[in-house]
Amino acid sequence: MVSFPEIRVFGVTGIPEVHPGNNLADLIVRATQGQGTPLEENDILVVTQKVVSKSEGCVVDLRTIEPSAFAQTLAAQWDKDARHVEVVLRESRRIVRMDHGVVIAETRHGLICANAGVDASNIPGDTTVATLPVDPDASAKRLRAGIREQTGLTIAVIISDTFGRPWRIGSTDVAIGTAGINPLKDYRGEEDPYGYSLRVSIVATADEVSGAAELVNRKTQGVPVAVLRGLPYEHAPEASSALIREPGADLFR
Amino acid sequence: MVSFPEIRVFGVTGIPEVHPGNNLADLIVRATQGQGTPLEENDILVVTQKVVSKSEGCVVDLRTIEPSAFAQTLAAQWDKDARHVEVVLRESRRIVRMDHGVVIAETRHGLICANAGVDASNIPGDTTVATLPVDPDASAKRLRAGIREQTGLTIAVIISDTFGRPWRIGSTDVAIGTAGINPLKDYRGEEDPYGYSLRVSIVATADEVSGAAELVNRKTQGVPVAVLRGLPYEHAPEASSALIREPGADLFR
Repeated sequence: MVSFPEIRVFGVTGIPEVHPGNNLADLIVRATQGQGTPLEENDILVVTQKVVSKSEGCVVDLRTIEPSAFAQTLAAQWDKDARHVEVVLRESRRIVRMDHGVVIAETRHGLICANAGVDASNIPGDTTVATLPVDPDASAKRLRAGIREQTGLTIAVIISDTFGRPWRIGSTDVAIGTAGINPLKDYRGEEDPYGYSLRVSIVATADEVSGAAELVNRKTQGVPVAVLRGLPYEHAPEASSALIREPGADLFR
Repeated sequence: MVSFPEIRVFGVTGIPEVHPGNNLADLIVRATQGQGTPLEENDILVVTQKVVSKSEGCVVDLRTIEPSAFAQTLAAQWDKDARHVEVVLRESRRIVRMDHGVVIAETRHGLICANAGVDASNIPGDTTVATLPVDPDASAKRLRAGIREQTGLTIAVIISDTFGRPWRIGSTDVAIGTAGINPLKDYRGEEDPYGYSLRVSIVATADEVSGAAELVNRKTQGVPVAVLRGLPYEHAPEASSALIREPGADLFR
């Protein structure tokens, strides 16, 4: 039989509602065991941002928010909840675009996304929204250490979130935090089978892994964690900030 | 045992160098059989653009190209081959950005990407470049019909290409042509487990599938085709143009 590259991606079911302070590593280890798919060495664990935010208490009750005048102005134009808009502004360090009722903001992490990552879906409570983890790379690192502590396994962890993009309809999941995996695969200097040196070929592996995980996430059925198995990857210590383009090299700021 | 969502993605090895007029469906069917992984009903076949372009003769020998004055001006500034720049301009219907030696162009298909998709990698010959297929949805449709003819199977076909994106480093593979699969999964109107209606949640499934396929493609080792198995998808007739944002709704034109 010819050998060929192959990966497997499966969703992790049976993770209960996550509350602040919950040990996410523990919940994930038990859920993977519970469905008969225990983690293995070199697995890539992809955890959607929402459960990480919940476990870290990155949730805001809108009833506690006093919207600023600007938030009220925006909310009135777009028929939105001014308190929600206020949270978006608080999470933003720069507005990239603001039109058609959409705010594309740069977060304090340097991520550029709709509503600075503030989102009301998949959270219990009518007045609760989640914000992005304060430091998603640190979250990934902690989760990786927690898994190692419980199982002895060395794995990679990616915290993913759902982002839109310019020009193309539909969101894809991308990596906002990583640990134990180089988020980029750099082919520069390598040659294709015809001897052509690939000059500008850097692949956002962590983003593609996040997208692959999304395929088994089933947004509406509560599968917030996935495992990708079989992908050779670099164990380099680069953080997810490697995925963020320098302002000077970005034609679309 | 608990049931959980799972997909499998594998590369198809053993596809020979593709020449204009080659029957790609035949090459793929034989290669999948050759490695002991014959296609199955509902598989999603992801074929990278380059082999499709080659089979359709979408290659240009730069020695036949007479660069325009504008192409020469650009090439001189950026230390590039004016004939290559000329092909990029011929493939473009609009320049979106042009700076730092990078041309982000809108192709006749409405795709926005670097160099209008013109690329010299993974092609034999020092003076040969490939252009995008003339109608990638039609290419996907033909390939799908060819597979059905040979095997009796109903599958989906995605033609993928490697695109950069604003704000984030690294490319991801996206769908430039589709057949037999709705490229988008629309969650609008569905409710999350907490009863929150997902108002703006359209996932670019075909792009995530393309990215997942890239993970097994090994750019430098000649694995231009992948199969994704196990994903439930909509068999809707939408073409890949569903992935292209209307100019009026795009904040980043």
